[in-house]
Amino acid sequence: MSHAVNANEPPRYVVGVDYGTLSGRALVVRVHDGAEMGTAVHEYRHGVIDRTLPATGAALPPDWALQDPEDYLDVLRTAVPAAIADAGIDPALVIGISTDFTACTVLPTLADGTPLCRLPELAGRPHAYTKLWKHHAAQGQADRINALAHERGEPWINRYGGKISSEWQFAKGLQLLEEDPEVYARAERWIEAADWIVWQLCGTETRNVCTAGYKGIYQDGSYPSAEYLAALNPDFAGFVAKLEHPLLPLGALAGGLTARAAAWTGLPEGIAVAAGNVDAHVTAPAAQAITPGQLVMIMGTSTCHVMNGDTLAEVPGMCGVVDGGIVAGGYGYEGGQSGVGDIFAWFVDSSLPADYKAEAERRGIGPHEYLSELAAAQKVGQHGLVALDWHNGNRSVLVDHELSGVIVGQTLATRPEDVYRALVEATAFGTRTIIDAFEGSGLPVSELVAAGGLLKNAFLMQLYADVTGRPISVIGSEQGPALGSAIHAAVAAGAYPDVPAAAAAMGRVERRVYEPDAARTKAYEALYEEYRTLHDYFGRGENDVLHRLRRIRNEARG
Amino acid sequence: MSHAVNANEPPRYVVGVDYGTLSGRALVVRVHDGAEMGTAVHEYRHGVIDRTLPATGAALPPDWALQDPEDYLDVLRTAVPAAIADAGIDPALVIGISTDFTACTVLPTLADGTPLCRLPELAGRPHAYTKLWKHHAAQGQADRINALAHERGEPWINRYGGKISSEWQFAKGLQLLEEDPEVYARAERWIEAADWIVWQLCGTETRNVCTAGYKGIYQDGSYPSAEYLAALNPDFAGFVAKLEHPLLPLGALAGGLTARAAAWTGLPEGIAVAAGNVDAHVTAPAAQAITPGQLVMIMGTSTCHVMNGDTLAEVPGMCGVVDGGIVAGGYGYEGGQSGVGDIFAWFVDSSLPADYKAEAERRGIGPHEYLSELAAAQKVGQHGLVALDWHNGNRSVLVDHELSGVIVGQTLATRPEDVYRALVEATAFGTRTIIDAFEGSGLPVSELVAAGGLLKNAFLMQLYADVTGRPISVIGSEQGPALGSAIHAAVAAGAYPDVPAAAAAMGRVERRVYEPDAARTKAYEALYEEYRTLHDYFGRGENDVLHRLRRIRNEARG
Repeated sequence: MSHAVNANEPPRYVVGVDYGTLSGRALVVRVHDGAEMGTAVHEYRHGVIDRTLPATGAALPPDWALQDPEDYLDVLRTAVPAAIADAGIDPALVIGISTDFTACTVLPTLADGTPLCRLPELAGRPHAYTKLWKHHAAQGQADRINALAHERGEPWINRYGGKISSEWQFAKGLQLLEEDPEVYARAERWIEAADWIVWQLCGTETRNVCTAGYKGIYQDGSYPSAEYLAALNPDFAGFVAKLEHPLLPLGALAGGLTARAAAWTGLPEGIAVAAGNVDAHVTAPAAQAITPGQLVMIMGTSTCHVMNGDTLAEVPGMCGVVDGGIVAGGYGYEGGQSGVGDIFAWFVDSSLPADYKAEAERRGIGPHEYLSELAAAQKVGQHGLVALDWHNGNRSVLVDHELSGVIVGQTLATRPEDVYRALVEATAFGTRTIIDAFEGSGLPVSELVAAGGLLKNAFLMQLYADVTGRPISVIGSEQGPALGSAIHAAVAAGAYPDVPAAAAAMGRVERRVYEPDAARTKAYEALYEEYRTLHDYFGRGENDVLHRLRRIRNEARG
Repeated sequence: MSHAVNANEPPRYVVGVDYGTLSGRALVVRVHDGAEMGTAVHEYRHGVIDRTLPATGAALPPDWALQDPEDYLDVLRTAVPAAIADAGIDPALVIGISTDFTACTVLPTLADGTPLCRLPELAGRPHAYTKLWKHHAAQGQADRINALAHERGEPWINRYGGKISSEWQFAKGLQLLEEDPEVYARAERWIEAADWIVWQLCGTETRNVCTAGYKGIYQDGSYPSAEYLAALNPDFAGFVAKLEHPLLPLGALAGGLTARAAAWTGLPEGIAVAAGNVDAHVTAPAAQAITPGQLVMIMGTSTCHVMNGDTLAEVPGMCGVVDGGIVAGGYGYEGGQSGVGDIFAWFVDSSLPADYKAEAERRGIGPHEYLSELAAAQKVGQHGLVALDWHNGNRSVLVDHELSGVIVGQTLATRPEDVYRALVEATAFGTRTIIDAFEGSGLPVSELVAAGGLLKNAFLMQLYADVTGRPISVIGSEQGPALGSAIHAAVAAGAYPDVPAAAAAMGRVERRVYEPDAARTKAYEALYEEYRTLHDYFGRGENDVLHRLRRIRNEARG
């Protein structure tokens, strides 16, 4: 096979570029064994644009989250050369580059890929910019999309757990049409940043099966019908024309690196550029977790769950199931929790008393480490609390961004570590709810494979093993998505025949790092029951107080 | 009338002594106009005994709260002379003394009033000490008392909102019997501290209608029957013998000050000692709020609600209705919220971030003042939250000490002032729930009259007016209970014919200090609806999660 080491030739390399919410990271990886040679990060100059539009200073409405696509190019110009320099390798030995992106992060462009926000006459229009995944201002459109889909019995709606998210292409596109029809009309393409960046690298537009399936409602060979779209809004009937394009499987060759992109990156012109991909999905091969039953959890500010399946099932509340959505030849399932690490961060920011802060500082540890240590000393249920982890809404299995957090059981003796532990448990219960949904649909979950920033919290990881009653394996790289991208670059460059082969050689995982404790797993059953009861009460309309409170809040804020 | 000022005679004085949870306060008051001449406080040396018994160092079980009655005598020995000195008056001009106490605060004594804990052979027995009102370890007994009362259709149970509290005489007495039968057998008297202190002052045992009615299940001329008590526990059949004694109305003369008590206090031997009384109840005449429809709220760590009525009604969830329980001739209703100020204190202690603490300190204001200022700037509902104020259980209208707090609606944008405001609102909703219970039983509530430590928070007071839609008048004394006791001392001394006459001359109130804002009152309707829905869901068994969590907690703590 082409990836065999030839002692007479120098090793070859690939570059994986992971586009996150606040920065992009480039990672240089050795093709034959996946060794990580060097890395660099570039923080986006504009970060998340959620208060005022930099071009005008105008305030944005609530729930908006934009980005400037120029920031993505800056990653190519700065992080890629810096990673090569960090690796200390000859860039001439790089044979491919691949990218992964947050999704659905989507922007309007001209037919040549020029972002509309780059046009001087549109630079002051918020709708001309990239709408970041966490732009949540299209909920009204999403509600209509869902209601109409169910009303018409659209065949695709149950592939998405019965609900299309306000984060995705159609909701954001419909918001664009209805709030700024002029920008909508100018948008010849409506394209995921995942595909747009590949276009910038190889000079030709491509689209990938992953974002088309998960974010673009592409199922069984087609997008939603013009009749359906016209019923949403007559002017929306032709929306699909802005999306349509042949789809590439993951790991496919999108094209060769253009001279312009070679100049940005310092990489050789003409090397392989892989099809676009998504951060969560590329992590599965990086963790060698692409066998059915291996549920990958990418745990950070939020958690994404991806799992390959042999069969096509409709799992309630999933974000989606896509043929080839993780690796070609399998059905890729995606679920998610919209708030995990950011709930803990919010708690520390908004609720950590001064004496706790001082004690953590005195001991030279972070607040999370200190709270985790205190919480870890407790027995299951000792704090008397149960919480719902919906501070940032609920993605799976309720697909409702307008839910909010709940905590019950506080007394005058409740301490910060009690609440902290209850919040960690709530997120673990949220994961278990997703596992239950998989299993209830005939897709067994035998092993959890964890990746992401929360891995470093051993208390949390053990708690997840205990709550779910399953062993947890851990990715062997701190740069899971970038390594996953590198794997796809190696496939696109022809170094491996397919993603599973590349993953076997280049991916890394430590098996069963955390084993569930049988007694704690049993003790958690009772608390999980309480969680599920409250979950259904507050989340399925039995008491719709969370929606009403949000409406009251929004009205009070004017 | 005898209280008319006679220019040829020096003015006369009375002393009111208010026994609180942590200290006792003496107040010297001028008889003819209620002027407060001087005051002094004595902190109990043993405070609340809730961790270890001082005599042995032995740990107490959870939910215990004891006191040492010697601390009560120290108040007579120190605070009374200090208050006289502070007033700068001749103690020979004092014509009477009266006391009020926390309740149900109850102790076992010999037939001569000697507390059992003073007997050397029992000093190491926790059950030989005073059980403070907030001793909550007799819940199991209370549950049985209630179940049996309903099963047998006992006529008195509905006078107490259908539930006898674990805090009261019978639950605590049954716990004593069942956990330490030897101390129970030695207890010739089981007596409220309110009556015990009067015994120490005048040398003869008396009992008062107020504690007998509210805490001792004395209704329509009798205590619960021996048959009922025997059904609870055969050895409990004779319990009433430890209580029985003719009852004095409030303001009645209990006796003359003994030589021993005169020596303690420095007051003249033989002056009038008034019948025992309760802190909340004496406050009503101090605030000139004894007319039906005037609901007195004594707002501190917890809130007591007392109101006089012309008619006897069974108000759901009231602590009790007692003939003459506030003033002779009226039906005294008592309700209460078991956690109010202590919920806010808990929040500040457990959840105030360092930057908030620092900012309050920089500005030289307290954390409550700072949070109130931030919260006051918000519109109704702007925080998107609703909370249940049960962090210390619920007294009215659910009478359930094993409930706990709930907060719903938190997001990643929720700030400390949002939660603080939601907690203040929750306590106001709790008060409104009590008002609704009164009105639903045919007892209109036209005016709220506030007393207690929370008065100083104008934001909170205005919020209560807005939530309840009622004007709030404010007591004109910072020492409401002690002033109320002084009023009763003046009546016992014969300076006034009855408590209403003394209250008219000596009490003080500022009318309608806070007026409800119509728009805010309307806006609060929607939030109050949410509160009520959650109140019933979590409090009336629809989802008994709070009880289950407490059971799990207690088991985990072993």
